[in-house]
Amino acid sequence: MGRIIIVGTGFSGSILARKIAEECNRKVVVIEKRSHIGGNMYDEYDEYGILVQRYGPHFITTNKYSIVEYLEKYAEMIPHDVRLLSFVDGNFVQLPFNFRTLQQLVGAKKSETLLAKLREKFYGRDRVPIFELVESDDAEISKYGNLLFEKAYRTYTAKQWGLQPEEIDKSVLERVPMAMSFDARYINKDFQYLPRDGFTALFKNMLNYPNIELRLNTDALVHICFDDKKHIITYDGEEVELLVFTGNIDELFGLKFGRLPYRSLDICYTYERRKSILPEEIVSYPQALGYTRSTEYKKITYGIDQDIPISMIATEYPLEYDPNNEKANIPYYPVLTEESQRIYAKYLIEAKKYDNIVLCGRLAEYRYYNMDVCIEHALEKFNEIRERLEKKA
Amino acid sequence: MGRIIIVGTGFSGSILARKIAEECNRKVVVIEKRSHIGGNMYDEYDEYGILVQRYGPHFITTNKYSIVEYLEKYAEMIPHDVRLLSFVDGNFVQLPFNFRTLQQLVGAKKSETLLAKLREKFYGRDRVPIFELVESDDAEISKYGNLLFEKAYRTYTAKQWGLQPEEIDKSVLERVPMAMSFDARYINKDFQYLPRDGFTALFKNMLNYPNIELRLNTDALVHICFDDKKHIITYDGEEVELLVFTGNIDELFGLKFGRLPYRSLDICYTYERRKSILPEEIVSYPQALGYTRSTEYKKITYGIDQDIPISMIATEYPLEYDPNNEKANIPYYPVLTEESQRIYAKYLIEAKKYDNIVLCGRLAEYRYYNMDVCIEHALEKFNEIRERLEKKA
Repeated sequence: MGRIIIVGTGFSGSILARKIAEECNRKVVVIEKRSHIGGNMYDEYDEYGILVQRYGPHFITTNKYSIVEYLEKYAEMIPHDVRLLSFVDGNFVQLPFNFRTLQQLVGAKKSETLLAKLREKFYGRDRVPIFELVESDDAEISKYGNLLFEKAYRTYTAKQWGLQPEEIDKSVLERVPMAMSFDARYINKDFQYLPRDGFTALFKNMLNYPNIELRLNTDALVHICFDDKKHIITYDGEEVELLVFTGNIDELFGLKFGRLPYRSLDICYTYERRKSILPEEIVSYPQALGYTRSTEYKKITYGIDQDIPISMIATEYPLEYDPNNEKANIPYYPVLTEESQRIYAKYLIEAKKYDNIVLCGRLAEYRYYNMDVCIEHALEKFNEIRERLEKKA
Repeated sequence: MGRIIIVGTGFSGSILARKIAEECNRKVVVIEKRSHIGGNMYDEYDEYGILVQRYGPHFITTNKYSIVEYLEKYAEMIPHDVRLLSFVDGNFVQLPFNFRTLQQLVGAKKSETLLAKLREKFYGRDRVPIFELVESDDAEISKYGNLLFEKAYRTYTAKQWGLQPEEIDKSVLERVPMAMSFDARYINKDFQYLPRDGFTALFKNMLNYPNIELRLNTDALVHICFDDKKHIITYDGEEVELLVFTGNIDELFGLKFGRLPYRSLDICYTYERRKSILPEEIVSYPQALGYTRSTEYKKITYGIDQDIPISMIATEYPLEYDPNNEKANIPYYPVLTEESQRIYAKYLIEAKKYDNIVLCGRLAEYRYYNMDVCIEHALEKFNEIRERLEKKA
């Protein structure tokens, strides 16, 4: 038996590390490039005692309570409905677009016939992609769909992806829904939770297990070698039995087929001597220049009534991922275009030459996983890994 | 042409007074027993500058924007979603019962299968009467319906009506719904509005018209006489061409068939040196003794952030209407039982002997009108009245 190496300590890496260590009773070495665990879920307290998620706001939202139950092994989970407003034409409106937003944007009077039409046309449907509205054969619905697209969507998407909307893969476009109701929740998942003491504490508990050796500030790629002929992987010259990789797949293979595009975020912090800055914990700015969203963490992690006379907002400026630009050296979202998918396919074929590489997570699988799906997917991957380890044993 | 007398200055009386005066260009005398206009919508500023609705919280909620438009002639109308929580088993839960309340009451884990069942069974339905849940053939749904009934409904109804639930007319029971969604609005109407400067100001503008003579502090019943033989009505001996009556119909006819039961409310005010008392503008207390609801008016008319260091709650204790008990001498809700309906029918037959009596509104028609329906109904009644007046002219 060789070593088991796990690269990355986001949900994919941490879940697999813990389960292999605990349920297969195998020693694992977990390699983390950054100085901290938790990937982009990492949070820490600032000097005022505000718990800040350093890579933007993250929430556990799922329709499967088993996901929350699993996390409860490692942290106290508390219910927290994600709340978000969008700042459109000088007004704060609810997002996703819903019947209330419609009334705010077209006016109450005009909304009356439009609501009746939407209710009839989309009877029984909870959320409908904006694109279905745009393409509707009803002129009024289509006009409204286009209004949403123009007011709040075209510019937001352009900023988010650094592209024109036409260049974006449709699987991304179809993520933007309108709620066919007055449901004011941002996310229409039944279970919305946060770890009470933050994500970092959760990851710490998950990785705190005798069989797990954690190495922070370590670039795995310096230590990993591929033997192209024997199809063997080594770590510091020692043979690797299993490599679980959760980082950028292009970097694993020395960018040999070119760089995969990811989006990054430059997050700027503004402290103000005010108890409250935004009307809601997250505000989206489709019409602003450069930035897309602001998060007031105090409202997420403490509630608005906390008596600190100071608050802070973290504003996100989307940028192209660039490991050499310190403002954009964190990959967030894979940029799914036809070309990037083609490049990814080449890396995937390369990875498949080695039967002991497991790719897992948003970066390695180059997919836009939400956190709940990411967790569920890692739990499923573990079942494959267990089978493999048991077969070998 | 004789006189046109209108008794009462709630929505029914005020709307008809204004429309007859303005659109038929007829002089009307409006008689109001109380010292103020506006019926149970009456509001006034207290000594701290809080706008208090003296007869409990009222909101304009409707699916027809034309209702709001009509009121906009007399007041600036501002959107305001009614917000209400229910205090059940020591927790504040959303009302009406919805998917979130369900999770709070049965626990997140247990809620998962129940939600799936409800979604399937009531597909496409916005709100479902609790009684449908109770009577469901699915044991789990029925059990949950019974839980809601026991926790939050049986005792509330008993307090509200001073009766056992079995004695209540089913048309009242069916008013209690469960939302089949996470829609957290108390009222599922598309348009929810308040007059910015209060209802009294709205009524003042409505009644402020040259053809309208308003007499406050006047008991119309002292002045009105019925001539049983000629079927003529007089006011101070002068023949009445049209009597629009919006008060208690039993009192109009000297209680000759007995008293109709109404519910009243004793409203107790509690001031506290706190900026905020309740977590929401209205809290319902199904399990408390004696009182049913508290309203924190500051939250309705100013928003929570207003910088008065004081707030007030108005708590409602339902009582049987009794004109001789000063804590219960305001009629609020007709008590619809088979017996009361029988008595009402007798008064109605009596009224029909006179072809110039128009009964309008919750008290005179002995029906549980919501405000939007009451307004719409008065507007319709006006069309009948106009026809009649034009025919005579």
